[in-house]
Amino acid sequence: MHAPQDVRAHAQAAADILARLRAKAPRVHCITNSVAQNFTANVLLAVGAQPSMTITPGEIGHFLSGAGALLVNLGTFDRERAEAIDVAIGAASAARKPWVLDPVLIDRSPPRAELARALLERHPAALRLNAAEFGALGGNSADTAALKQFANRHQCVVALSGATDFVADETRAVAIANGHPLMARVTAMGCAASALFAAFLAVEGDAWRAGVAGMLILGVAGEIAGERAEGTGSFAVGILDVLHRLDAATLIERTRVS
Amino acid sequence: MHAPQDVRAHAQAAADILARLRAKAPRVHCITNSVAQNFTANVLLAVGAQPSMTITPGEIGHFLSGAGALLVNLGTFDRERAEAIDVAIGAASAARKPWVLDPVLIDRSPPRAELARALLERHPAALRLNAAEFGALGGNSADTAALKQFANRHQCVVALSGATDFVADETRAVAIANGHPLMARVTAMGCAASALFAAFLAVEGDAWRAGVAGMLILGVAGEIAGERAEGTGSFAVGILDVLHRLDAATLIERTRVS
Amino acid sequence: MHAPQDVRAHAQAAADILARLRAKAPRVHCITNSVAQNFTANVLLAVGAQPSMTITPGEIGHFLSGAGALLVNLGTFDRERAEAIDVAIGAASAARKPWVLDPVLIDRSPPRAELARALLERHPAALRLNAAEFGALGGNSADTAALKQFANRHQCVVALSGATDFVADETRAVAIANGHPLMARVTAMGCAASALFAAFLAVEGDAWRAGVAGMLILGVAGEIAGERAEGTGSFAVGILDVLHRLDAATLIERTRVS
Repeated sequence: MHAPQDVRAHAQAAADILARLRAKAPRVHCITNSVAQNFTANVLLAVGAQPSMTITPGEIGHFLSGAGALLVNLGTFDRERAEAIDVAIGAASAARKPWVLDPVLIDRSPPRAELARALLERHPAALRLNAAEFGALGGNSADTAALKQFANRHQCVVALSGATDFVADETRAVAIANGHPLMARVTAMGCAASALFAAFLAVEGDAWRAGVAGMLILGVAGEIAGERAEGTGSFAVGILDVLHRLDAATLIERTRVS
Repeated sequence: MHAPQDVRAHAQAAADILARLRAKAPRVHCITNSVAQNFTANVLLAVGAQPSMTITPGEIGHFLSGAGALLVNLGTFDRERAEAIDVAIGAASAARKPWVLDPVLIDRSPPRAELARALLERHPAALRLNAAEFGALGGNSADTAALKQFANRHQCVVALSGATDFVADETRAVAIANGHPLMARVTAMGCAASALFAAFLAVEGDAWRAGVAGMLILGVAGEIAGERAEGTGSFAVGILDVLHRLDAATLIERTRVS
Repeated sequence: MHAPQDVRAHAQAAADILARLRAKAPRVHCITNSVAQNFTANVLLAVGAQPSMTITPGEIGHFLSGAGALLVNLGTFDRERAEAIDVAIGAASAARKPWVLDPVLIDRSPPRAELARALLERHPAALRLNAAEFGALGGNSADTAALKQFANRHQCVVALSGATDFVADETRAVAIANGHPLMARVTAMGCAASALFAAFLAVEGDAWRAGVAGMLILGVAGEIAGERAEGTGSFAVGILDVLHRLDAATLIERTRVS
């Protein structure tokens, strides 16, 4: 259990990173699935980032040259997206820009899991996924020691979404208790978490801190939106509203980490 | 005109099927158009189903193996979707899983109508469409006798959307008067009806009952959302909220069938 | 500065065109990016138009034959879309139907800018874009004389979005001060402006008047929705609600042009 001052320090760090994001308005290029594109773009805009989403191989290098980070999301990927992912990771690596891998539903599709394992070898700054997806990569979500071990082996931050979220690198791990059950009842919420993580990487060099900020801010926004929502529709709308207006005082008041 | 007790029986049957859907949370694989994907996923999640939407041929078999039903929607179909549809129907047929055909806008596109006619020969459990689309398949929507005849010829349930919805198999037909004019002013509402039908097929073996439940529940939700909406935007949000909270008492109170 | 009676005349003309749109419910075919498709369709439905969005080359001619106008939007274009654009412009030109070019983000992608320049030679009725995109086409947004010059050189109406919107043809130019800062914080708002322009072209033969109506109506709707919104989520929902209910009195009261 973290001491109250640690909890407050996490909240304050997230608020600082969010303030930087709003001030710098970084571009985030997203190779993501067609189900999630609109909501992902609106989540990024709500926090102050500038999304771009082209999957045309000949354009990706141009878009990445002005972007601060890249999101690679494997949901509903088609052939052109598979090629786009390869080109985008190559361009991000060459420019030393951080990228986030979101291996959506690889637990249900062996060929997609195989692709995710190959991409993990290409050094993403972070991996954002749920426990079932983590298991399909050989990950063990039983405790934070196992998460740190995985992060160390693959030299990337792991953000694990669930009733409690975990963010770990090889030496640090935090459990985030914020969030709301409705987050599992709206499509693309995990995709949005990965996109936020990428946006925060564009303004924060410590990838673990960027991940904690992303998961914490989405969890707090989900919690507030969930308390006000009349169902899944107004919840999805409300989470954008809350992200747009979220302030440091609310983050400090709401943050529950350990 | 159905007697009051018949109306109540329809409402109660739909409520029972909805309760089963919420308890079992079946997976529904959707090959659907990019305009409708996000709303369709959120409609399925609102009633408690688990959507998946990949169109990559090499993955579809894996996704279908865990799914309870398949939706095949022909809106904005591209080349990869055409191949995906073929693979998905093959996999569903081999596994004897029910699938719903939604021949979007075939009345405006002869090549699409030709594809729909070919797919109709591959034994969908159900066909969900509007009167113009039904006409393009040679269907006659003039009366329920004609609907039953079509259902008998093609051995599938027909769900016809309009100011009044009809659901027919070879021997049974029901007219559903629920709904709201705003349902025609939001994109993908018909696509969502077909997706709901597929979700109900995953938990109800009698395809006609599944279809009546799907059309009735969407009609009642649309009616309630329409009464509360301030326009088309809040209507689309509201229908998700209502679907998420709909209970048996409301269904029984609202159902208007004959 | 326009005299008050001119302002009122612009508002009244826009209201008249909107009334015609609602009465005729024209079809508008949209080749647009997958991020914007759903919102674009809902914006068109909110004002009373009928969207179609297929990108399958073999179908586009059939869809265009019943459409009143075409939108060509270059956002997230893939290979099939590039082919679809070529086919669609050919069909629109052959049938002498107006089309709108929206060169999304060409300022960030030289190959996309090259495509936009080539398409501009194929005689769109209108070009709708922002200042950065206009610059990538060699356009100078410094004053209305430069806009008129560009419109004259390319024989098309130019609608330039920004804090103030401008609509110009070779002899006429108007500045529209309506709008709200939240319009830049929701994805696909520019795409929606272009779609509205196309819809108005389907019912108004004077392309400049159609463009003024489209930009003015979206600006007024954005202004009203922005005043009521609690953030970016409710803003995007609210703008659909306002578009759906907008009346002549509100337009006349709100219009600020010069």
